[in-house]
Amino acid sequence: MKVKVTVMLKTGVLDPQGEAVRHALGALGFDGVEGVRQGKLIELDVVEGTAEADVTAMCEKLLANTVIESYSIEM
Amino acid sequence: MKVKVTVMLKTGVLDPQGEAVRHALGALGFDGVEGVRQGKLIELDVVEGTAEADVTAMCEKLLANTVIESYSIEM
Repeated sequence: MKVKVTVMLKTGVLDPQGEAVRHALGALGFDGVEGVRQGKLIELDVVEGTAEADVTAMCEKLLANTVIESYSIEM
Repeated sequence: MKVKVTVMLKTGVLDPQGEAVRHALGALGFDGVEGVRQGKLIELDVVEGTAEADVTAMCEKLLANTVIESYSIEM
């Protein structure tokens, strides 16, 4: 069973990686880009019957740093 | 206008980062995880009227390394 977990920096947290991408896109001539945020997409292959609560526990304990990152789970 | 770009390693390309996450989940007691792939999620804030072709060009030129990575665009 495939589960997708998306981890993004919370709004207000500085994202230097995204900012670097925005600068690079501008340097390449892409002028219409006003902002870039970069996050992680983690695809888990879990055994059938895994509950969303288990995936939430994985996010809280390992996948996301909940102080600065938010996550969403797509079962 | 928000555009989401997902960049994942192609199937068959070794993903040491995902493998490390899988091992760490196992060590934390999450036994039901059979595989992990980790990719990037890039959220672009582009001006209205930006065509999908422009975003494709951004992916080809900067956001993805098309030798080893595949990307998908969600406008």
